[in-house]
Amino acid sequence: MKTLIVYDISSTKLRSKVAEILKDWGLTRIQLSAFIGELTPQERNDLAEYLKRLPLSERDKIDIFPICIKDLKLHMRIVKGSIKHGEP
Amino acid sequence: MKTLIVYDISSTKLRSKVAEILKDWGLTRIQLSAFIGELTPQERNDLAEYLKRLPLSERDKIDIFPICIKDLKLHMRIVKGSIKHGEP
Repeated sequence: MKTLIVYDISSTKLRSKVAEILKDWGLTRIQLSAFIGELTPQERNDLAEYLKRLPLSERDKIDIFPICIKDLKLHMRIVKGSIKHGEP
Repeated sequence: MKTLIVYDISSTKLRSKVAEILKDWGLTRIQLSAFIGELTPQERNDLAEYLKRLPLSERDKIDIFPICIKDLKLHMRIVKGSIKHGEP
């Protein structure tokens, strides 16, 4: 299932590390702190366990959103002067 | 339908303005640049049209993800030392 991962991480070093991990897991960056990609339920849980062990600060957050294809088709991206519809 | 909105906006002033707009539309902040809330399809489109008119720079992006309740129940939030399951 496609999975969106967005994060708020205060440490620049840790933020880069998370980005590297998500790339290693085959996810694609769609924003500075947002990645999307195909993960099985098992992979999702394994990745969450892996990320949980990182030295997150009290205020850091990583949100994992599985999103079905039907919903992804409703996605909209707003950029300068236009709206793009469909899967990111 | 619950809708997740995440954004990459370079201008601090504009970033704050978008946050204010999303709050005005009844969305709840879950991360610095991520909000979630209930929007009808019409509200989603109206909000997208409204945001499109903002003075976004070339690299700014706002992503709108409608997410059904079934998927939201699979959401996971990773914070320092723990994983929380369920709707954000």
